[in-house]
Amino acid sequence: MELVMAMVAKESLKKNMEVFSEKLKRFPGLFWQTVWRVGRDDPRRVVHALKVGLSLTLASLLYLLEPLFKGIGQNAIWAVMTVVVVLEFTSGATLCKGLNRGLGTLLAGSLAFFIGYIAEKTGHVFRAVFIGTAVFVIGTTTTYLRFFPYIKRNYDYGVVIFLLTFNLITVSSYRVTSVLKIAHERFYTIAIGCGICLVMTLFIFPIWSGEDLHNSTVIKLEGLAKSIEACVSAYFNDVEKETTQDKSSEDPIYKGYKAVLDSKSQDETLALHASWEPRHSRHCRYPWQQYVKLGAVLRHFGYTVVALHGCLQSEIQTPQHCRILFKDPCIRVTNEVSKALMELANSIRNRRHCSPEILSDNLHEALQDLNNAIKSQPRLFLGSNKNQATNMLALAAAHANSSQKHEKYNGVSLPSFKTDNSALLEWKSKRMINEHSKSEAAERKVLRPQLSKIAITSLEFSEALPFAAFASLLVETVARLDNIIEEVEELGRIACFKEFKPGDEVIINFKTQKVDVTLNHFSSQGAE
Amino acid sequence: MELVMAMVAKESLKKNMEVFSEKLKRFPGLFWQTVWRVGRDDPRRVVHALKVGLSLTLASLLYLLEPLFKGIGQNAIWAVMTVVVVLEFTSGATLCKGLNRGLGTLLAGSLAFFIGYIAEKTGHVFRAVFIGTAVFVIGTTTTYLRFFPYIKRNYDYGVVIFLLTFNLITVSSYRVTSVLKIAHERFYTIAIGCGICLVMTLFIFPIWSGEDLHNSTVIKLEGLAKSIEACVSAYFNDVEKETTQDKSSEDPIYKGYKAVLDSKSQDETLALHASWEPRHSRHCRYPWQQYVKLGAVLRHFGYTVVALHGCLQSEIQTPQHCRILFKDPCIRVTNEVSKALMELANSIRNRRHCSPEILSDNLHEALQDLNNAIKSQPRLFLGSNKNQATNMLALAAAHANSSQKHEKYNGVSLPSFKTDNSALLEWKSKRMINEHSKSEAAERKVLRPQLSKIAITSLEFSEALPFAAFASLLVETVARLDNIIEEVEELGRIACFKEFKPGDEVIINFKTQKVDVTLNHFSSQGAE
Repeated sequence: MELVMAMVAKESLKKNMEVFSEKLKRFPGLFWQTVWRVGRDDPRRVVHALKVGLSLTLASLLYLLEPLFKGIGQNAIWAVMTVVVVLEFTSGATLCKGLNRGLGTLLAGSLAFFIGYIAEKTGHVFRAVFIGTAVFVIGTTTTYLRFFPYIKRNYDYGVVIFLLTFNLITVSSYRVTSVLKIAHERFYTIAIGCGICLVMTLFIFPIWSGEDLHNSTVIKLEGLAKSIEACVSAYFNDVEKETTQDKSSEDPIYKGYKAVLDSKSQDETLALHASWEPRHSRHCRYPWQQYVKLGAVLRHFGYTVVALHGCLQSEIQTPQHCRILFKDPCIRVTNEVSKALMELANSIRNRRHCSPEILSDNLHEALQDLNNAIKSQPRLFLGSNKNQATNMLALAAAHANSSQKHEKYNGVSLPSFKTDNSALLEWKSKRMINEHSKSEAAERKVLRPQLSKIAITSLEFSEALPFAAFASLLVETVARLDNIIEEVEELGRIACFKEFKPGDEVIINFKTQKVDVTLNHFSSQGAE
Repeated sequence: MELVMAMVAKESLKKNMEVFSEKLKRFPGLFWQTVWRVGRDDPRRVVHALKVGLSLTLASLLYLLEPLFKGIGQNAIWAVMTVVVVLEFTSGATLCKGLNRGLGTLLAGSLAFFIGYIAEKTGHVFRAVFIGTAVFVIGTTTTYLRFFPYIKRNYDYGVVIFLLTFNLITVSSYRVTSVLKIAHERFYTIAIGCGICLVMTLFIFPIWSGEDLHNSTVIKLEGLAKSIEACVSAYFNDVEKETTQDKSSEDPIYKGYKAVLDSKSQDETLALHASWEPRHSRHCRYPWQQYVKLGAVLRHFGYTVVALHGCLQSEIQTPQHCRILFKDPCIRVTNEVSKALMELANSIRNRRHCSPEILSDNLHEALQDLNNAIKSQPRLFLGSNKNQATNMLALAAAHANSSQKHEKYNGVSLPSFKTDNSALLEWKSKRMINEHSKSEAAERKVLRPQLSKIAITSLEFSEALPFAAFASLLVETVARLDNIIEEVEELGRIACFKEFKPGDEVIINFKTQKVDVTLNHFSSQGAE
């Protein structure tokens, strides 16, 4: 028996080893792949890494070269530390950190010098108590100060450095006689470190937070344009519908709005850092807060797109042969919205005002057509009254489409209503039996989704209800688009964008299939 | 002339001074107000500040007390620095930072010792070049490594400390003979500093990231419950509608879902820190990732609530006298959804499984009633066909309500359609004139909203279309609720929540006014 167990253990060990060695073999490949991908996604990362290496080497020279070392001394090492901590990816972040560090050190130095001056007059033991108390009080108040929203947002790093430097100097002053010398040297070398960082970040391949914020706004606008278009075209193409069920990152709809939804903290950080950067233009201040405001409006537009996407994944669906009646105006509205978003993206990218024709007559016409299409199908919005099997919608659909589809529709609709009541009862009885059994949790998970599907699909809502929601949300996007245009124009005004010139429009080719409008009109008249 | 200007300057200076002194006078009041509010919002902040002060004092004692100083020496100052940098608000964050710092220092020390060992064999000049090169190469590769997503997420701070320590030791080794001693002392004192931090964070009033994540999930669920209820009751109460137009933070709907929407980065940070914390229970591992997954599902529920909120602020609105027909079932569905969310919040708060009756028959009945209400009003979903002035909706409304309202409705509907075409033309002609004038930007801002309102309100969509969207979104929330229940049950399963006991339900009193159901049924029959 033991032999068997030992063999099993050995076998499993061998297997684990094999898995591990397999992983180990794959590791170099994966590693180099990541190295390559990280650099390819944003080549500025390579530049930044080289800049850090160079700055560190320069700072080390203070220590390594004989003449420089004689001037500065042992404290030259602080310059190296400053470079490690201060040199950030973008200029704004570096400036923010560098100035915070400088200011924090200066203030802490002054305060520490003052405290050291008082402590100097007293006896040895009292001095230790005095310094200990000062450390406690300053430590507590400074930490509490870090919770203040204003300070947390703007000067968090500065406060940490203040605390660090204050403790360093105050505590050192107990053993070292010349407090002034420590404070002076520390400040001096930190200044050199910050200086190296500033030169590196401002003059050698500078990377601007403002630029990143600007570009991310453009990308978000484009993402929304693509997303809404993909969403609407998926709604009218049944084939694509099944593949979008899994919310994979490859789904173009999800990919388009994903970046917008969770952009708040990133936007705010970039805007904060950008506010530390020197002005890019002489005439205008750069309105970083306006970008943040625009970001908020874009997020709200994004939420509507998510709701539209939700219509695709909803349990109750308007049948495809009914949707097709509204395909053309819906797609035209979408194309216009998407075109407007693209035009806004281009206007921001090229820093010019957007076309005055951005809300074109086409959009108005497309909305009017959608309106007419809905009005021309009044029976669609009639539910099956008093549970009659032949509902008006089915009739309308039958006229509009082939009779085969009609049969299929009735075939699905009737049994589903019959089954769900029995399924509900079945579910409940199962529930009762399992109530106190051990496997309940596992069963519960399997059974629960059934109930919700029963609860929702058993309802014979007017079949057009889901489409009405879809159409209404689509109209809602037009209203939200208007908010976006307003914010972009405000942005253009504050940032002194160039005037719009007639040749500036970009013609965008849409990949969506054109639907024959006349054909549609025919079928809708037939349904009446 | 100059005298006048000087006087004006003096006057403006005086005015500025007055404003400034006014601000200065108000400053202490504001300051103490902030101090009080920061502490009241979360009293643990005060505790944390005191803990930092205490830890710093303890670390300083290493330096201040004679016997301790003799053992450790000058490098005791590193312990103080470690405390400043490592001691964070929650235990998880402190552990994460402390272990990162320890690991980084250890690795950097080993590597620096190895490099120092090689460099030692060579000549003075070559050594400087060798050290400079090593600093450059390690600086560049380490910085590049920080861009790897996996490392950035888990070990960013450790990599920074690695770089810091490596440079410190390598560069110092050029002047100081005993590299080993520096490395050893630095590691030693950092270990003491980390030790103080760990004791403080784990044993003295510990604050757990996991606890915060847990509580924030409960608060988010409750916020959503309140939000959806406020939203639906506002939809059916016209009086409230106007006040919610400005998206102030006082708006209960906005306040409810605001915390949910932008919770992604906060959730992920808390979960990361929580994963470093010791297990709270012996039997089960704590499923932080499940909280993050639940957070994602809650955000998706939140987007639907935002879309519902959007229905309140939309340009096209179903008239109040039509909405009233569906008020009762809608409010009942909402109450059931809200009750389920509250029950989920309570189940998580008390770490027990949620009630098996969470999706009660009431919800199913309420959905069925909503369904019946919509089916019993088929004419509502008929648009005014071929622009007839007397539309079916108006007729239905007339039957359902007083004739006074009917007149008002027609009075609004007809002129609005007449005006909008002329308004559009007017807008365009104004646009042409202003095209190249200076005041264009300002005018543009004023004129733009008009166009969108024209574009949208000029459409005579079936008046029930906005309500259909509202109802459809409401049904959608039920479907999303199911996802939430699934994730909460999964959470309960992984985290070994207590079994549900029949007395555990919490009865919640709703403040929404009850509508007389029979009255409603009467009016809807009248409309038919």
